Amino acid sequence: MAIIRRELEPILANVVEGNGLIYIAGALADDTSQDVTGQTRQAFADVDRYLAMCGSDKSKIVSATIYVADIRLRDAMNVAWLEWIDPKNLPARACVEMKMADPRCLVEIQFVASK
Amino acid sequence: MAIIRRELEPILANVVEGNGLIYIAGALADDTSQDVTGQTRQAFADVDRYLAMCGSDKSKIVSATIYVADIRLRDAMNVAWLEWIDPKNLPARACVEMKMADPRCLVEIQFVASK
Amino acid sequence: MAIIRRELEPILANVVEGNGLIYIAGALADDTSQDVTGQTRQAFADVDRYLAMCGSDKSKIVSATIYVADIRLRDAMNVAWLEWIDPKNLPARACVEMKMADPRCLVEIQFVASK
Repeated sequence: MAIIRRELEPILANVVEGNGLIYIAGALADDTSQDVTGQTRQAFADVDRYLAMCGSDKSKIVSATIYVADIRLRDAMNVAWLEWIDPKNLPARACVEMKMADPRCLVEIQFVASK
Repeated sequence: MAIIRRELEPILANVVEGNGLIYIAGALADDTSQDVTGQTRQAFADVDRYLAMCGSDKSKIVSATIYVADIRLRDAMNVAWLEWIDPKNLPARACVEMKMADPRCLVEIQFVASK
Repeated sequence: MAIIRRELEPILANVVEGNGLIYIAGALADDTSQDVTGQTRQAFADVDRYLAMCGSDKSKIVSATIYVADIRLRDAMNVAWLEWIDPKNLPARACVEMKMADPRCLVEIQFVASK
């Protein structure tokens, strides 16, 4: 199953299943006027929907790669992370600074989850 | 199966299988005199070969992480992406800017595919 | 199985299993006074322990993403890599430069391994 991102020209899928694992593409905020905490919350809301479409949920996430536009945003991103993530099922995670295609985009998150 | 990159001192494999998934290392262009579109096309030609060696093909790619040397190269990289990728089987994808070991190298791509 | 990183506020796991694959979070050095070779050796010592806890070992690593704080540190990181990695089972690997949350941290490594 592949759920295609709503774009004028589709270039990627938001979520793809392969061999029992679910891959979620760089999840982003739609409303980039918000700060990094708000943008992260928006991305997680999308992730919840994608996982549910695949019959999974956030307790099944095994790996997270978090790209922030400035590493000093890490603490504010973590506010949304700690609100949302299942504390009994924490994923393996790396958080790194990267320049985004859209400078208003402050955070982009890749996930791998099992079903 | 691991296909070892041709280097004086081998330090990595270009493609490795594990538990039904195929991991392709940062695919690069051999001829770095080309622009990012050309370099991306070269990397994809290698990826096609690696996937075929594993009995898979690009329609089975589930995840892509694309590193570009300058995020402004994203559009020119996408020209090669859209030529090559299977529009019915788009992978989950993140595209971020990062500094490469070789400054002539403009793009490096990690893939995960199923068989 | 999820092994939680020792932090005041746990936010991630060091190693998580999902669907037969083992995901290791950004492995870091505890003693950041060491140079990048020493820091990489420390990270690998942790990785050996995590893999052993999951009934695996470094010969089963399929994918590595190595983040270095400065791409010029790649060669010194590779000294530790070549000492440690199984030359008969080289993983698919990408090595990129990125800014770390802690500026004393020179290297962070994500692994995927099979069992």
